[in-house]
Amino acid sequence: MTDENFPTEMSAIIKKEKQPGLELTNWPVPRNLGPQEVLVNVKRASICGTDLHIYKWDQWSAAHMEPPLVVGHEMGGEIVAVGSDVHHLKIGDHVSVETHITCGHCMQCLTGNGHICENVKILGVHVDGTYASYVKIPALNAIPMPKNMPWEVLSIMEPFGNAVHTVFAEDISGKSVLITGAGPIGLMAIAVAKAIGAGPIITTDISEYRLDFAKKMGADLVLNPKETDVINEILTYTDGEGVEAVLEMSGAEPAIHQGFEVVQPGGHVALLGLPQNNVSLNLTDWVIFKAIRIYGITGRRMFETWFRARKLLQTNRVNLKPLITHSFKLSEFEKGFDLLMKGKAVKVTLIPED
Amino acid sequence: MTDENFPTEMSAIIKKEKQPGLELTNWPVPRNLGPQEVLVNVKRASICGTDLHIYKWDQWSAAHMEPPLVVGHEMGGEIVAVGSDVHHLKIGDHVSVETHITCGHCMQCLTGNGHICENVKILGVHVDGTYASYVKIPALNAIPMPKNMPWEVLSIMEPFGNAVHTVFAEDISGKSVLITGAGPIGLMAIAVAKAIGAGPIITTDISEYRLDFAKKMGADLVLNPKETDVINEILTYTDGEGVEAVLEMSGAEPAIHQGFEVVQPGGHVALLGLPQNNVSLNLTDWVIFKAIRIYGITGRRMFETWFRARKLLQTNRVNLKPLITHSFKLSEFEKGFDLLMKGKAVKVTLIPED
Amino acid sequence: MTDENFPTEMSAIIKKEKQPGLELTNWPVPRNLGPQEVLVNVKRASICGTDLHIYKWDQWSAAHMEPPLVVGHEMGGEIVAVGSDVHHLKIGDHVSVETHITCGHCMQCLTGNGHICENVKILGVHVDGTYASYVKIPALNAIPMPKNMPWEVLSIMEPFGNAVHTVFAEDISGKSVLITGAGPIGLMAIAVAKAIGAGPIITTDISEYRLDFAKKMGADLVLNPKETDVINEILTYTDGEGVEAVLEMSGAEPAIHQGFEVVQPGGHVALLGLPQNNVSLNLTDWVIFKAIRIYGITGRRMFETWFRARKLLQTNRVNLKPLITHSFKLSEFEKGFDLLMKGKAVKVTLIPED
Amino acid sequence: MTDENFPTEMSAIIKKEKQPGLELTNWPVPRNLGPQEVLVNVKRASICGTDLHIYKWDQWSAAHMEPPLVVGHEMGGEIVAVGSDVHHLKIGDHVSVETHITCGHCMQCLTGNGHICENVKILGVHVDGTYASYVKIPALNAIPMPKNMPWEVLSIMEPFGNAVHTVFAEDISGKSVLITGAGPIGLMAIAVAKAIGAGPIITTDISEYRLDFAKKMGADLVLNPKETDVINEILTYTDGEGVEAVLEMSGAEPAIHQGFEVVQPGGHVALLGLPQNNVSLNLTDWVIFKAIRIYGITGRRMFETWFRARKLLQTNRVNLKPLITHSFKLSEFEKGFDLLMKGKAVKVTLIPED
Repeated sequence: MTDENFPTEMSAIIKKEKQPGLELTNWPVPRNLGPQEVLVNVKRASICGTDLHIYKWDQWSAAHMEPPLVVGHEMGGEIVAVGSDVHHLKIGDHVSVETHITCGHCMQCLTGNGHICENVKILGVHVDGTYASYVKIPALNAIPMPKNMPWEVLSIMEPFGNAVHTVFAEDISGKSVLITGAGPIGLMAIAVAKAIGAGPIITTDISEYRLDFAKKMGADLVLNPKETDVINEILTYTDGEGVEAVLEMSGAEPAIHQGFEVVQPGGHVALLGLPQNNVSLNLTDWVIFKAIRIYGITGRRMFETWFRARKLLQTNRVNLKPLITHSFKLSEFEKGFDLLMKGKAVKVTLIPED
Repeated sequence: MTDENFPTEMSAIIKKEKQPGLELTNWPVPRNLGPQEVLVNVKRASICGTDLHIYKWDQWSAAHMEPPLVVGHEMGGEIVAVGSDVHHLKIGDHVSVETHITCGHCMQCLTGNGHICENVKILGVHVDGTYASYVKIPALNAIPMPKNMPWEVLSIMEPFGNAVHTVFAEDISGKSVLITGAGPIGLMAIAVAKAIGAGPIITTDISEYRLDFAKKMGADLVLNPKETDVINEILTYTDGEGVEAVLEMSGAEPAIHQGFEVVQPGGHVALLGLPQNNVSLNLTDWVIFKAIRIYGITGRRMFETWFRARKLLQTNRVNLKPLITHSFKLSEFEKGFDLLMKGKAVKVTLIPED
Repeated sequence: MTDENFPTEMSAIIKKEKQPGLELTNWPVPRNLGPQEVLVNVKRASICGTDLHIYKWDQWSAAHMEPPLVVGHEMGGEIVAVGSDVHHLKIGDHVSVETHITCGHCMQCLTGNGHICENVKILGVHVDGTYASYVKIPALNAIPMPKNMPWEVLSIMEPFGNAVHTVFAEDISGKSVLITGAGPIGLMAIAVAKAIGAGPIITTDISEYRLDFAKKMGADLVLNPKETDVINEILTYTDGEGVEAVLEMSGAEPAIHQGFEVVQPGGHVALLGLPQNNVSLNLTDWVIFKAIRIYGITGRRMFETWFRARKLLQTNRVNLKPLITHSFKLSEFEKGFDLLMKGKAVKVTLIPED
Repeated sequence: MTDENFPTEMSAIIKKEKQPGLELTNWPVPRNLGPQEVLVNVKRASICGTDLHIYKWDQWSAAHMEPPLVVGHEMGGEIVAVGSDVHHLKIGDHVSVETHITCGHCMQCLTGNGHICENVKILGVHVDGTYASYVKIPALNAIPMPKNMPWEVLSIMEPFGNAVHTVFAEDISGKSVLITGAGPIGLMAIAVAKAIGAGPIITTDISEYRLDFAKKMGADLVLNPKETDVINEILTYTDGEGVEAVLEMSGAEPAIHQGFEVVQPGGHVALLGLPQNNVSLNLTDWVIFKAIRIYGITGRRMFETWFRARKLLQTNRVNLKPLITHSFKLSEFEKGFDLLMKGKAVKVTLIPED
């Protein structure tokens, strides 16, 4: 890496103080690549729900972040420099990014569970993130992608990985599935479920805006719990059988309860949505007598999920483009955050201008 | 079956009225074997916790039973007559009994999940049971056993199957395990866990009487939550790691919470004990961020569990005899029920005298 | 069942003598339903490769069949009578048929492996089959299907089940796959692989006629080993990676070798095609050093495969109709056999006329 | 690492030329630790069958090695220096060693299959090995072990890992198993199978010396194919059932054939032994109609196998000491090689004297 090739400063969105809000600022371009790091020129960064929490500076953010810091963790970009020990990636490669920077030597990392690394650091939370023209990441976290894939699709592969991870908790091809919550990951899960031949695919959400997208992505039946008795509707639709799989994407207790009510005996529930409080469960009737399996899902399997996600896109089994509803210049990030907070966008990508 | 070979009457313990208590009475020996049924001469019947509920006539019993009915479902006995279409069993075979009488044609039965048959009938609950000299059961429910195995061991294979089913929720050989609850099934689970090389094996219970048995069956560490901080003790014992597997056998909310607290990220929890009320769970921290798996366990896999259970006994990998603490004549059944209600016995077997 | 409702005779295709050929004849309509049997009015029967072997009276047929016997085992039909103990099916139900009549009590049947029952009898091989207007089968073997599904599709669900069973040996959604052999089951496997998001899907066959169908069913690349170096082509197409899964449908040693050559380390090979002779394998380089898994596939999982197969059709994830290239009256069966022997048809269905 | 703490020279056994034989020589102590490497003081090194091939300079050795090089890859030792980026290990730690030095970035490494890394380097084959007083290895390859475990046991954990990997191909607790080949890994596999409650355990070998050890390690039945009809004996012993699992440790075609003959329908075969030539298999009868699964096993899962192996030893479920039949000073290595070539030893450990 010859530092003279890069500007010394760039635009970046940072959390400056321990308080709500984000701010566009000049920030030094990362220097001093470690031997196993790469420098990526960010082409597109995408806004995640977590970034909204960081914007609002909620309890979780306050507990985990030490400002000042460049935020953002979703990204598609091009490698512009590689560390001295990096031989499997090269300048010019197009990459997406795995957000979890793992230690590589804890029990979890050593047994195929890097996604729950005991010493994980998260891009844009613990180290400088992707809302900038350049970002420095470990080479392992830079996932090479085909050059014919659009930058904006690369920028949303991280949450897509969450969706893939959840859908593949078990093999649901040829099985019925309920997806509770049609946020970005829920909508992506619908697309994956459709692509792998799950069906019927039922989706619930309290937003009609999102339910419209759910239909577009392939849901066979969409239900709004505000307007209908979800449990009855699902039982009717499935001839009283319920569903073989539930993918919980909302974190909402009523949705969780509905999922456990309608999952068939012998089925499974994959939990991705994060409830803010304890959830009361009827373990006897919902779990034990039904002999179901429950999976806690977090992050992406490193890197099985990425290989599968990439192949689903490469072979055109899944099309994520309809979910990218808006794109803005990095400097106009407030517009994107505003739309998302109002529930008027699915995925918003930001375009660095440097 | 030539009916004249059998007496017309036998002693049996029945639930006579919809009220507490059981009663010894004369009862007709079952007649009119169906083509796929067998008649078994009961050599030993064993008392289950469910039978205590039936004795007390609790809410569950009142909802499920229609007296009068012979109770009891655990048994070791000898086949004395076979139906016209039964060719794989013969008179003289020694058998244990699977309690769940399945329909054979519901979705669960058709997909390897007979243990959660939608139309299940339970011996001694819905049809005449094993606390008698003779019992009529479907041939499929009569599991042939080696003739050199004692009757009393045959009589406790049904709950042993529950233990085997729970231990084998995942492969825990060479893994650490916590078993919460050292009732009969918990104690059997310790023996199985030991036999398959799980370790260390930690067990919790609030009864010192049971914890003594836990040690005998192979637990490496026993803890009484009444006297110690179970979570701290387990974390200390495991160098802060927690355990890779939790087998929940108590149904008690505090034990369930302790299990979820100490299960390692990436581990699993198998739930067998039946909580009486909803349980409040921290799904976010205990399940999702730890990426664990939860298994609801009920009954025995029909009949994979039986094959494994039988082989573990046949090859002397597991010895259940220490758990049979008392045996009484059928007519003295009150003694056995009394000891069990007082927590002064593990397994009590009853000996029909006809 | 009131016998007077049915004719006493019907047209049927039988193997009359221990020699080549089949013959249309009058045959008694089955009588005396057992308590767990059903009588089915055959609407469509489909010709299987096995039936060609029976026609030719090859070594396998000579070893397994005792003429005279109605042949044929694939079928879609309507239930016209049910045995006294059959309560989950009723007259008028549309059904497809599972060919393997299992004993229900051998170790395999008792452990979820009914498809390899030790005492299996095969419809149209050991007992009277489906090339007739009526066939008597165990109720368990009659798989109820939605009434809006065409008879001809019902008639090919049995081989479709073979395809589903093979594809689901492991979860190949989002993975690359080679299918060697594009006979009927291979072609169905392409459709399933496509429906569950496997990709790329590569198919080999020595028949251009079949390769055309392979493309129609969704193969991304088709290769004829007679005309091209299959191994090189696959490695080139996959950037040197090979494929993650191989589904072997040909039984031909060269195809098997090609499969093992191109399967990736860590991948798997599912074997369905039946080689006539021993196959020489480089276990060291192909299996052990590549750490692959091999699955022997036979029949259909009873009945998990059927549930999945039905749902894939019901939800329109798979369309089998293009594979039914010809249909003839039962009396014109020779035309169908002729086309199949010449390799000029995929699936041929026969229509009983009684 | 302060180099002055170590001698500059040490005794080492090297392959000096491209020809048979090994030689004791003075060799420089490794210097210039990379940031993620450690230097280990070898306390015990153990001789592997591969080392015999290297000694003899067979075809495989000639194809893979570039002398001069320190040979040996099994070892127990103490860390005496750590690279600048190594924080999870420290000087004084006792370690065993994983032989496969992986690239960390190929598809296999990235998907939990590091044991089949596409760019693997093997200690003592491609880089300087363990037959010396000091060896430099990547920190990841140094597996920390409890300090109360003897050095000689640490030195044989690598082949023990092969045994653990093979036994755990599927969960065989409570299942019957045949282990063909009672070399060191086969004998360790017996111990593991015993420890996890598999049974009965049957072992075949053509060496009575080894069969005696097989009995000591827990085999229920040992058979010498030179003296008995192995297939008949096994079928008789298992009441005609055969075995549910076969662990192939010999690489000998007759043993492989015997394994496939006696494996039960629905069972599995794990292949570890490396046949020198292609093996002829009856895929139709042995694999497809029996619906078995075959696993190619190589190396150790990195690092799930190590965690399990360590726990089995730590909790005293397995005792490997009886297998260490001889120990010699490093300078007397020829004695150990001689015994092993004559089949008069199981595991021989070497003690560096520097």
